[in-house]
Amino acid sequence: MISAAFTEKLAAVVGPKWVLTDPAELACYARDASVASGHPAAVVLPGSTSEVSAVLRLAAEAGIPVTPRGAGTGLAGGAVPGEGMVLALTRIRQLAVHKQDLVAVAGAGAITADLHTAAETDGLFYPPDPSSASVCTIGGNIATNAGGPHGFKYGVTRDYLLGLEVVLADGTVLQTGGRTLKNSTGYSLTQLLCGSEGTLGVITQAVLRLIPRPEDRAGVLAAFDDAGAAAQAVLDIIAAGISPGAIELMDRTALEPAAESLWPHPPAAVLLVEVDGPGEVVQRHAGKIEDICGRSADKTQRAAGADYEEFHRLRRSISGSLTRLYPVKIGEDVAVPVGRVTDFIEKVTGISKDTCVRIAVFGHAADGNLHPNILFDPRDTDERQVKAAMDGIFQAALKCGGTLSGEHGIGMLKAPYFETAVGSEAVAVMRGIKKAFDPRGLLNPGKIWLTGGEVK
Amino acid sequence: MISAAFTEKLAAVVGPKWVLTDPAELACYARDASVASGHPAAVVLPGSTSEVSAVLRLAAEAGIPVTPRGAGTGLAGGAVPGEGMVLALTRIRQLAVHKQDLVAVAGAGAITADLHTAAETDGLFYPPDPSSASVCTIGGNIATNAGGPHGFKYGVTRDYLLGLEVVLADGTVLQTGGRTLKNSTGYSLTQLLCGSEGTLGVITQAVLRLIPRPEDRAGVLAAFDDAGAAAQAVLDIIAAGISPGAIELMDRTALEPAAESLWPHPPAAVLLVEVDGPGEVVQRHAGKIEDICGRSADKTQRAAGADYEEFHRLRRSISGSLTRLYPVKIGEDVAVPVGRVTDFIEKVTGISKDTCVRIAVFGHAADGNLHPNILFDPRDTDERQVKAAMDGIFQAALKCGGTLSGEHGIGMLKAPYFETAVGSEAVAVMRGIKKAFDPRGLLNPGKIWLTGGEVK
Repeated sequence: MISAAFTEKLAAVVGPKWVLTDPAELACYARDASVASGHPAAVVLPGSTSEVSAVLRLAAEAGIPVTPRGAGTGLAGGAVPGEGMVLALTRIRQLAVHKQDLVAVAGAGAITADLHTAAETDGLFYPPDPSSASVCTIGGNIATNAGGPHGFKYGVTRDYLLGLEVVLADGTVLQTGGRTLKNSTGYSLTQLLCGSEGTLGVITQAVLRLIPRPEDRAGVLAAFDDAGAAAQAVLDIIAAGISPGAIELMDRTALEPAAESLWPHPPAAVLLVEVDGPGEVVQRHAGKIEDICGRSADKTQRAAGADYEEFHRLRRSISGSLTRLYPVKIGEDVAVPVGRVTDFIEKVTGISKDTCVRIAVFGHAADGNLHPNILFDPRDTDERQVKAAMDGIFQAALKCGGTLSGEHGIGMLKAPYFETAVGSEAVAVMRGIKKAFDPRGLLNPGKIWLTGGEVK
Repeated sequence: MISAAFTEKLAAVVGPKWVLTDPAELACYARDASVASGHPAAVVLPGSTSEVSAVLRLAAEAGIPVTPRGAGTGLAGGAVPGEGMVLALTRIRQLAVHKQDLVAVAGAGAITADLHTAAETDGLFYPPDPSSASVCTIGGNIATNAGGPHGFKYGVTRDYLLGLEVVLADGTVLQTGGRTLKNSTGYSLTQLLCGSEGTLGVITQAVLRLIPRPEDRAGVLAAFDDAGAAAQAVLDIIAAGISPGAIELMDRTALEPAAESLWPHPPAAVLLVEVDGPGEVVQRHAGKIEDICGRSADKTQRAAGADYEEFHRLRRSISGSLTRLYPVKIGEDVAVPVGRVTDFIEKVTGISKDTCVRIAVFGHAADGNLHPNILFDPRDTDERQVKAAMDGIFQAALKCGGTLSGEHGIGMLKAPYFETAVGSEAVAVMRGIKKAFDPRGLLNPGKIWLTGGEVK
C-alpha cells in the first residue's frame, strides 16, 4: 500500500532518518501495552507541527490511513496500527511552564512526568498521573483522556486541558481554546478532541492548566481480609466529607507479584489513601481515615516521605508485574457510580469463580474506576472462558450503571462492546462528528467502533 | 409561519394550556437579560422529555425553527427567539441528590439555587454559581457553560457535568455519559453539548457531580484607590500558592449603584476574596490574604457569616443595579490569561477615555474572566462610540491572548466577532458538527455564528 515513491516524499518532509521502513524498526511500532498488535507499512516521526501538516497532506493525497501514536503505553490498542502508516509524535516534545498564567504549554510528545517536575519546580501542580507517567506522553494522555489516582479529588486530563493545536486529516492546522481558564466561545473542540483517540485529528501541542501545589501530603495504608470491607471503607471515607488526593484499592491477586518484598502473604485487599493539602489538615484527615479504616481493617499504618513513595511505586508497578507473571493479561478499565463499587467487586468475584479465570482487581476506588485484569495462560485456559469473563465484566459494569472505560479509551479491544455501552443513537451522532472532521476515514481507522481498517 | 393547525398539534402533545400565542404572553419570551429581543410566533412549554421529543418531531416535519430557553437570564441573546417558536424547559424541573454516588440528577428547568440547597442539605456542594443562581436554570447553565465566582478554584458547569439527556432536532432522545465520575467511552458528547447554546440539541436532564462541602468559609474585603493595584493583589495572592474559593474585583463604576448603602463614595476598586476549606486553614489563609492586600490597599477587613453574605449579595446585585441606573447596559464577558488581567484593565480604562463611554469592570479576577459593562444613555451617546468601545474591548481581550466569552456564550450579540476570535478553520469544523446534529439548521438559528434566521 505504501510505495517507495511515497516514503521518499515523506523523507523529503521530515528527513530520511525519520522515516522507518525496516521490518525490525517497524516491529517497535506494532504494539501498545495491550495484547493487540498490527503491521505498520511505515513509521514517520515529524519534528514540528508544520511537518505533521505536510505529512498528513501527503497521506490524504495518497489515501493512506494514519495511526497517530505517542509512547505506546495505551491499554486498549488505540495506537496499534491498521493498514497504512504510524505517525509518531515523540519528537515534538517542547515543554514550558508559564507561571503567571498558571499554564504549561507542552508538545504532544512531552513526557507526563517531565510536566509534573516542571510544574513542581515552579511551585505548581499538574494532577493527572497515569501509572505510566514516567514514559507516557501528553498527547497520548489527551487522546485517551487519561486519569490516574488523583482523579477523584482533582479530575482527569480533560479537566486541565485549556487549548489544543491539532492537525486535521487534510493537513489543516487548527488552534482551539487558549490560555484562559474559562472559555465559552463556540463549541468546545478542545474537550471534544480530548478522548477522541486520534480519530478526529492529530494533537501536536496543548495548553494545560496548573494549580497551586498542595502544601503537604501523607498516606494511610490499610490491609483488609475482605475486599468488600475495603470497598465499604472507601464509601465511609467519602461519606465523612473527606476528599483524599487518591484512594487506591488493590486485591490479593493484584498485589501478589508486585508486593513480594513487602508482603510475602498479601492480605485480601489493601487501600492506599493519599491525603494532601495544608499541613494541619493532612494530619487531621489522615487520623480520621485511620479511624474509619481501623473499624474493619486488620492493620492500618500512616506513611510519609520515602515510605509513602515506596508504596506508591508498588501501586504503579502492579500492571507491569502482572504482565511478567502471567503469560496473558487483559486489563479492563470500567467505571461504575461510586455507590456501586462494592456491588461491582462482588460481581467480579462471582465472574472469576464461574469462568475459572483469575481476575485481579485494582484501581481508583473513590471514583469507581477499577481495572479488573484477566490473567491466564493460553495453554490451560480456553478462549471461551476468557471471552465469558470479559463479557461478564462489561455486563456487570453496565448493570451497575457504569461504562466501558474510565481512562484508557475504547481503542480496538473494546470496540466490539462500544455500541452496547453507549447506544446506537450516540454512535450515529459520533459517526456524524467523525465525518465532519475526517470524511475519508483516514485517521486511526478501526478504533472506537468497528469499521473498515480493523487489524487482527 | 406558524399556522393554527400547527399550534393545535402542539396543544395535542402538551395540552392547550402550555401553548402560548397571545401577544402579551409571547412578549414575556421575547428577550433574555441582554439588550437583544425577538418576536416568537408561539411558545410551547412541554412537561416531559417525551413531550419535548414529540414537539421537536412536529417542528422538524413542519420545518419550523425552535429556540430553546430556560429562565432567560442569559446576557448574550442566546435564548432570544428568531423566526419560529420558543421551547421553554421551565416545567421540566425534577431534582434529586444521590448522595452515595455523589451526583445530582436535575431536569433542565431546575433552578440552580435549588441544586445548591439540595446538595448542602446532604452535606455536599455544587460549586458553579452564576450571579443569577436564584432564578436561572441548570439547562441554561449547561447550554452556556455558566461559571460564577467559584470558577477559579472549583471550575465551571462543564467540570461538573457527567451525563445528559438531550433531544435532537429530529426528536431522537439521546443519553450521554452517566453517573460515573470518569468516562473515556467514545467522543464526549456531554462536553461538546455543554456550551453549545441550544444549537445542537435540547437538554432535558443532566447528571451533575457533587463534592464534599467545604468545612468553613470566610471573606476578606479590600478597598484600593487604584484598580491596577487591586488586579496586582490578585496575582500576588495566587503566586502565594493560595487557591481562594473566589476573588471578585469590582471597580468604582460597578460599585456606585449597588453599594450606595455600604459606601456613599466607593473606592476605585474593591476585592472580595472568599477562602473556604477546613477551618484552621481558612483562618490562616484569610490572614495571609489580608497581609498581601494590606500592602497596597487603603483598607482591608475580614468578614464572616451574615456580614460576608451581605457583601456577596452586593456582588451578585451589580449587574441588575447597573441596569436600573443606566438606560442601556451592554455586558461583556471576556476572559484573558490570568497574568494579563492588569494589562487588560488598563486597556479598558484607555478605551473608556478614548470613546467617552462609561465602562464598569467587575468579575472573576482570579480566572481572568471580567465583565466590562458598557453603560450609556442613547440620547447623549451615539452608536459609533458604543461600537468603538465594544470593538476595543474585544480587540484588547484578543491582544492579551484572551477570548470573547468566559461564561455567557456567544449568542446573537457576539456572533459578529466570533470568527475573528476563533479563526475560520475552527468555524468550518464547528459548522460540520452543527450539520451532523441538525442538518436543516432548525435549532436556535442565528446564534454563535451569523447564519439565516438572525433576528434584529
